[in-house]
Amino acid sequence: MKNRIKKIFRLTEKKIDTIIIKNSVFPYIDKNFFYTTGLENGIFEEATAILYTDGKIDLIISELEAETAKKADADITIYKSIEERNNILKEMLSPIKNIGINSRHISYMDYQKLKKLCPNSKFIDISDSFVKARLVKDTLEIQAIKKSCKIADQVMEKIPNMLCDGIHEYEVAAEIDYLLQKNGADKPAFDTISSFGKNTAEPHYSHGNTKLKKGDLVLLDFGACFKRYNSDITRTFVFGKIDKKQKEMHETVLTAQKIGFETIKPGIKAGEIHRVVSSYINNTKFKGCFTHSTGHSLGLEVHDGPGFSPESNIELKENMVLTVEPGVYIPGFGGIRIEDDILIVKNGIELLTNTTRELLEVM
Amino acid sequence: MKNRIKKIFRLTEKKIDTIIIKNSVFPYIDKNFFYTTGLENGIFEEATAILYTDGKIDLIISELEAETAKKADADITIYKSIEERNNILKEMLSPIKNIGINSRHISYMDYQKLKKLCPNSKFIDISDSFVKARLVKDTLEIQAIKKSCKIADQVMEKIPNMLCDGIHEYEVAAEIDYLLQKNGADKPAFDTISSFGKNTAEPHYSHGNTKLKKGDLVLLDFGACFKRYNSDITRTFVFGKIDKKQKEMHETVLTAQKIGFETIKPGIKAGEIHRVVSSYINNTKFKGCFTHSTGHSLGLEVHDGPGFSPESNIELKENMVLTVEPGVYIPGFGGIRIEDDILIVKNGIELLTNTTRELLEVM
Repeated sequence: MKNRIKKIFRLTEKKIDTIIIKNSVFPYIDKNFFYTTGLENGIFEEATAILYTDGKIDLIISELEAETAKKADADITIYKSIEERNNILKEMLSPIKNIGINSRHISYMDYQKLKKLCPNSKFIDISDSFVKARLVKDTLEIQAIKKSCKIADQVMEKIPNMLCDGIHEYEVAAEIDYLLQKNGADKPAFDTISSFGKNTAEPHYSHGNTKLKKGDLVLLDFGACFKRYNSDITRTFVFGKIDKKQKEMHETVLTAQKIGFETIKPGIKAGEIHRVVSSYINNTKFKGCFTHSTGHSLGLEVHDGPGFSPESNIELKENMVLTVEPGVYIPGFGGIRIEDDILIVKNGIELLTNTTRELLEVM
Repeated sequence: MKNRIKKIFRLTEKKIDTIIIKNSVFPYIDKNFFYTTGLENGIFEEATAILYTDGKIDLIISELEAETAKKADADITIYKSIEERNNILKEMLSPIKNIGINSRHISYMDYQKLKKLCPNSKFIDISDSFVKARLVKDTLEIQAIKKSCKIADQVMEKIPNMLCDGIHEYEVAAEIDYLLQKNGADKPAFDTISSFGKNTAEPHYSHGNTKLKKGDLVLLDFGACFKRYNSDITRTFVFGKIDKKQKEMHETVLTAQKIGFETIKPGIKAGEIHRVVSSYINNTKFKGCFTHSTGHSLGLEVHDGPGFSPESNIELKENMVLTVEPGVYIPGFGGIRIEDDILIVKNGIELLTNTTRELLEVM
């Protein structure tokens, strides 16, 4: 983990002596706390990590999670009350002049409290260094993501057997979440999307009471969370016979994704992926039907840093992990999306999710 | 929802003209956004709600969730880019002098951006008003919590049939999460705790690879999330014959909880619950074995406001919903916790979770 900390320091041009990561209560927990400590268990509400230029860490932890924290390679200070915690922070931080913070994930209240404890320290936003550091994954991270992708693949392959006439969207979501955990996920990566029929046209739909009926499109978007690392996969099926329009939509999306895959390699700008993929779709009869970004970075968060919108100037590098997820959505009819996770390698990509991308007819 | 907004304004003594709630990216979504809009679906990353003293709402929403937002009784403005969003916010907010914010859940970065957009406005922290408003539940909230508690009860009753020799903790957690959703939950309220044997002595343990064996304590702590409202229940079982120590621990915890129930009524201070419950346990042979707070408020968050620690000066009121969860933990041996959700009524409490609190022998 020392290398990760050094990398964060290296990626900022601002003059800082140390970095503080301060968690609030769940779910306001900064994932950088886990990125820098490597802790796989625990919640760590109200925990603080102080990071030093040589990669060393001071952890200030409630006695409730003292045991769990011991797995980190860090100096641990235990507190029993918030007052005691504040005194520890004051003592450790107030001699330090320039302290880096992640202002994207520290609450305004916590910032004010720190400022009050250490009125002579300067708190400097280095949130972009955290984002940049996490975009390029290391070996341990890639291992966890690969496992997470494998679990998602295993579950997706079981979907056709799960679908039957009259099953509800929420039942399929429950089955998926169950299978994710049975296959080794710690939990689902996010609220599983299980949508049928015209609901598939809403990219942000979660799941509801709709029952499956013949001819429906079935769009399933889910992922596994394994050792805090996420996967994210989408496949679309047809329950019954595929009709002409569904076939055309699917072919368009599949080709768009293939073009995306072929575009991605170290050195190109992230925005270019979206431009290439969306302009392909906009030159078909489905012009205007692709309404979101082509993908996003994947890691400790499902959206692990910025999405790959056309404006993105991020330069793609080896060992970045992205989703590639074009879709075509027709309100009132339905939508098709194909989403896979890829690792950028020397000359292109390695596919991390591999379930068939064909439009399967499920009977 | 108008009444909720008026209540938040009423509960602050600070001079404010309007209130802004600003979401960041998931999971940094302020639950007060849903409290004031009543929106049951959607994620609403980067969404903003502006609340007025008469209960009216302006919602500034990305086009991706425009359809979902229409279910709110609010004036909706749609944006297509962050630049457009910022211009809308500037136009709406900069004429306003005193703007209330929830500094507990707005990031320091978002605060700075608002300040830059509206340099002449004063942003005033009213986070305590949100907390106070949400402590006392209204009819709709109580309905959702009751349903959520019923689901948790239904699942807990199925646990004894689930336990068998050699089953892993993570498998029981997967079964519980599955049953929660099959019984109508939108999702589990939090990461389900499923612990066996000596792992039950760690109150914050989640679940792992431990296999169930004869004589083990089995501690299960989970909840349902229904229409965004949570339940939270814990029961402890013995797999096999109950031994003397387990029986004594259970009797102590059960009596402590009963004393807690009898103490709770409108007018007393929350800290009093913990004092009474913990001092009972500390007068038994299990002195020092109860290491956490006796409970917490429950609602849109599982920890919906402050916990009921001995220092808590919150006055209990009708229609508050709390957990009451004493426990006894013996490192290396195991722990027993009994947790129920209660609604404060005129003369005392109404139990919202009702599964038997007996220490069942599961064979």
